[in-house]
Amino acid sequence: MRIVVALGGNALLKRGEPVNAHVQQDNVRLAAVQLANVAAGNSLVIVHGNGPQVGLLASQGMNAPQAERFPLDVLDAETQGMIGYTIERELGNLLPGGRSCATLLTMVEVSADDPAFTHPDKPIGAVFTPAEASIATHDKGWSMTLDGAANRRVVASPKPVRILELQAIRWLLAHGTIVICAGGGGIPVIADEAGAYLGVEAVVDKDRSAALLARELEADLLVIATDVDGVYLDWGEPSARLIRSVSADHLDRLGFAAGSMAPKVQAACEFANRTGHRAVIGSLPDIERMIAGTAGTSVRRTQAEMVEGEPVVLNR
Amino acid sequence: MRIVVALGGNALLKRGEPVNAHVQQDNVRLAAVQLANVAAGNSLVIVHGNGPQVGLLASQGMNAPQAERFPLDVLDAETQGMIGYTIERELGNLLPGGRSCATLLTMVEVSADDPAFTHPDKPIGAVFTPAEASIATHDKGWSMTLDGAANRRVVASPKPVRILELQAIRWLLAHGTIVICAGGGGIPVIADEAGAYLGVEAVVDKDRSAALLARELEADLLVIATDVDGVYLDWGEPSARLIRSVSADHLDRLGFAAGSMAPKVQAACEFANRTGHRAVIGSLPDIERMIAGTAGTSVRRTQAEMVEGEPVVLNR
Repeated sequence: MRIVVALGGNALLKRGEPVNAHVQQDNVRLAAVQLANVAAGNSLVIVHGNGPQVGLLASQGMNAPQAERFPLDVLDAETQGMIGYTIERELGNLLPGGRSCATLLTMVEVSADDPAFTHPDKPIGAVFTPAEASIATHDKGWSMTLDGAANRRVVASPKPVRILELQAIRWLLAHGTIVICAGGGGIPVIADEAGAYLGVEAVVDKDRSAALLARELEADLLVIATDVDGVYLDWGEPSARLIRSVSADHLDRLGFAAGSMAPKVQAACEFANRTGHRAVIGSLPDIERMIAGTAGTSVRRTQAEMVEGEPVVLNR
Repeated sequence: MRIVVALGGNALLKRGEPVNAHVQQDNVRLAAVQLANVAAGNSLVIVHGNGPQVGLLASQGMNAPQAERFPLDVLDAETQGMIGYTIERELGNLLPGGRSCATLLTMVEVSADDPAFTHPDKPIGAVFTPAEASIATHDKGWSMTLDGAANRRVVASPKPVRILELQAIRWLLAHGTIVICAGGGGIPVIADEAGAYLGVEAVVDKDRSAALLARELEADLLVIATDVDGVYLDWGEPSARLIRSVSADHLDRLGFAAGSMAPKVQAACEFANRTGHRAVIGSLPDIERMIAGTAGTSVRRTQAEMVEGEPVVLNR
């Protein structure tokens, strides 16, 4: 089976944990055990998130002189190096002889006309004081938002249109290599009038890029691994229950608030609807059962009816 | 012809220029024009340096809380992302349809017994006050040196032993893809008793890694591109003259002070001696003539006698 796994930032770094080399390495080591199991007998592509890491690099850059600050596309590329290396090394350490793993830098084309560029809404990086936020708006033209009580920079999160290194990914997969690519959703680039690519200050949602990649690679299964065990009805209420299995159209109609679950639901529905193959959303430690169809929320193009779990006590 | 090009940090960022996204992009754009010319009709591998960039990331990290500082192997991986992306994008913009370019993260195995680990001598990153240097030595166990009048951290620069992603590089080359790899000399890792790889705080010389890669890939030519037009006799004196062509043994016997030219000479001699193929050291804008053998210093295993140029006025 060809499987594309989207590995959430929260699956690599627990909520509230500091972005720290040791914490990151320990979490990647745990994830690698799961991924090595999945790799056995399957063709595997891994797309990782980079939210906390790109935020950290942006914050560290803020302390540097203006001239030494790098734009977001370059910081995205840095996180593909940082995280890709750690996953490749730890996963490689667990693979049997003859099986290899490679990390490809990946650019993702987005459209210059994407409405996200006029309505940037993805918060990244450090928290600013109101005075700092005002300076950032005036001096740098940054868009700022209140994220709870925190002033943060927001950037555009345009839709991925095309994965530039697709052919190289296919070639490596054809040799049985596990490919780590499109990290952080890919490095966003736009084409100018002459067709030349330019980097843009944006971040691409990694679940959407993983869904696009899974479609282009004709994957049999898209796995969206995060830190919750699936999609819930009545989330946060006593009647909360896991959706075990659902059609893409039905899931789409339920509506999920923008935040961590909505893009996952959207990516899963899009993949299922456009390919007829299954997508599954769930918790990384359950990944083998998600693949078997016995854990997580499975999303299919056609599904007779929605299957719900029993009401559960949340916040375990 | 299969050509491995080692692209010096000084070929991408002129001496004294700030490490800056715009400066770097402009220089990479110029380099890409040369590299696109070389790519036509040849199998091409590009190994870039990362000295100024890894130094900048290490310095930016110094301002961050201790817990948020990343070790050198991770910073090396970040620079493979940062620089690899910029080269891939700019070179890709110049390639004819059907020709592609890909950047592979690359780990390089080094030996835990390498004497470099007991005698770290490669300066990296920021300049410290004597008081800061003393704290760094006591609190972090860093080795410090006086680089001129500047207190700087020195790290080990061990010999590259094995390139872990060699097979993936070969597969991509077989499809005609231009491969950017082993950036910054590669991410240094050592194998533990069980054969698992661990990252180490070190930097690998990119010319040595390029020579190893060229040998393993059975390249026909190793090009070491920097910002001087070759190796000089009597450098800095009125009698200074370029060595146009020389045997590896003869060049090796001349002796060059450690610094920017010695590792290039060593890498060129090693490649020529071990493969019988030519290595050439020179200036990036001359690269097509270096490949043709009409510019730079050509190094061969056998060479009847050393060919010198006319005495030249230096510091042009």
